[in-house]
Amino acid sequence: MEKRPLILISNDDGITARGINHLVMAMKEIGEVVVVAPNKPQSGMGHAITIGQPIRLDKSTIFGDDVLAYECSGTPADCIKLAKHHVLKDRKPDLVVSGINHGSNSSISVIYSGTMSAAIEAAIEELPAIGFSLCDYGSQADFSHTQEYVQKIALQVLAKGLPKGVALNVNIPKKSDEKIKGIKIARQALGHWGEEFDERTDPHHRKYFWLTGYFVNKDNGEDTDEWALKHNYVSVVPCIFDLTAHFGLSELNQWNL
Amino acid sequence: MEKRPLILISNDDGITARGINHLVMAMKEIGEVVVVAPNKPQSGMGHAITIGQPIRLDKSTIFGDDVLAYECSGTPADCIKLAKHHVLKDRKPDLVVSGINHGSNSSISVIYSGTMSAAIEAAIEELPAIGFSLCDYGSQADFSHTQEYVQKIALQVLAKGLPKGVALNVNIPKKSDEKIKGIKIARQALGHWGEEFDERTDPHHRKYFWLTGYFVNKDNGEDTDEWALKHNYVSVVPCIFDLTAHFGLSELNQWNL
Repeated sequence: MEKRPLILISNDDGITARGINHLVMAMKEIGEVVVVAPNKPQSGMGHAITIGQPIRLDKSTIFGDDVLAYECSGTPADCIKLAKHHVLKDRKPDLVVSGINHGSNSSISVIYSGTMSAAIEAAIEELPAIGFSLCDYGSQADFSHTQEYVQKIALQVLAKGLPKGVALNVNIPKKSDEKIKGIKIARQALGHWGEEFDERTDPHHRKYFWLTGYFVNKDNGEDTDEWALKHNYVSVVPCIFDLTAHFGLSELNQWNL
Repeated sequence: MEKRPLILISNDDGITARGINHLVMAMKEIGEVVVVAPNKPQSGMGHAITIGQPIRLDKSTIFGDDVLAYECSGTPADCIKLAKHHVLKDRKPDLVVSGINHGSNSSISVIYSGTMSAAIEAAIEELPAIGFSLCDYGSQADFSHTQEYVQKIALQVLAKGLPKGVALNVNIPKKSDEKIKGIKIARQALGHWGEEFDERTDPHHRKYFWLTGYFVNKDNGEDTDEWALKHNYVSVVPCIFDLTAHFGLSELNQWNL
C-alpha cells in the first residue's frame, strides 16, 4: 500500500471552530492528519508570534482517537513553528493546510489573516501550504459545499507541489442556490478596509473604541480574487513572503542618498 | 513661511521605548509631529489588529507639551488606523514613520515586525511610510548615529514621494568604531528563523515552551539587505502589501482545477 501523505492542519478560529473540523474530515480521506491549532480565537492576528511569554501545548482528543491533535496557547504562526520543530521534529509534512476560516480572506484581508499566516509560515519553512476560507462569517455557516474544492486543490498541491516560497490563499463563495462555477487562479485585488471606529464610554466614564469597517475594492480587474468570488468562482491566489517591491528598486536607486 | 510637513509616528516597542524618543526628536526638526504608539511592547505582532476587544486611546505628555501624543492599547496597525480615522481625521499626514525599533527587521523578520506593520498599514492607506530599525536589541542601545540617516531618508521621501503601495524598510547597523559606509537600496534576503523551543516545566508540573531562534541567511546575493548590513551600510528595502506571487500565476493556470 502506498504511504499516505502526512497533512498538518491549523487555523485561526481555534481548535473548537466548525471550520477546522470540516477541514480535518476532508483531509482524513486523503492522508494522515496531525492538528496543532490555537486554543482560542486568533482572528486578525496577522503574522504575530509569541515572544514575551511562554507557550502552552496540550494534547486534544477533539477529533477522535485516530487524529493526533494539540491545542496551543500561541498564534497560528506559533502553531506551525511548534508543529515543525517539536511535534513533527522527526517527520516532514507533505502538506500544511489552514482553516477553513469563518469569513473571507480575499484581497487585503490576507495581510491581517491568522489563517494565511499559518500557511505563509509553512511556506517560509519550505512546506507546501494552503489557507482555506469560506466567505461566510456566521458561526453556523454551511460548509457542505467546501469539501469538493478543498480536496481537489489539496490533491493537486500534493501531486504537483508549489513554486518555491509560495502558499495558496483559497477563498470559497458562501453557499447559495447558484452552483459554484469553478476555480479561478487570481491575483490579490487592490482594496482596503475603510475603518470606522465606534466610540463609546464605559461605566467609569472612560472612552473606548471598537474597530469596525467595510471593505473597499479599488480594483476593476477581472483577474482578481474579488472578481472571481463576486462571480461565484473559488479564488486561488498564490502568495509570497518576499515583500520586496522589485518594481521600485530602480526608482529608489536614482535617489540622492 | 512654508508649511511644515505633518509627520505621524508610531512603533512597536511602546511609547516609552528609547527608540521612538529618538525618532520624535529627529522628526521634530523636520516637521510637526503627532504620535500614536502602543502603551506596551508589541514586538513580533506582525500585522495583527484588535477585533475581539475594545481599544483604549489616552493622551500622553511624554514628549513634552509641543507634541500631540497618544498611547494606545492596540497593536501598531491599530495605532495607524486610529490615527488616520480618529486623531487625524481632518488632516492627512505627509509622512508616517515607525520605530526606531530595538533590533533588526531585515530579511524575513519584516513579516513578524510590528514596526513594519505600522508602515505597511500606512501604505495601504496610501500614505508615504518608513519603518526604521537599529540592529541592536539592547535596551541601552546607542542611537546617536541613527539621526543622520533617519532624517536623510525621511527628507527624500517627503521630497519625492514613494511608488504607489510601497513602504520602506530601513535597517541601520549597530554603532561601532567603523563609520557607516552609506545607504544601499536592497531587496529582502531569503532567510528564515531556525526555531528552537526551550521546553521547561512550571512549578505545577505542567510543560511550557519559550520560542527561541537563530537567523539563517540562505541568500548569497550582494543586492540584499543582509549583505548591506553585514558590510556596514544602511539597508533600504521597498516593501509591498500585494502578496500575489505573480511569477506563479501561469504555472498554476496549467493545473487541472
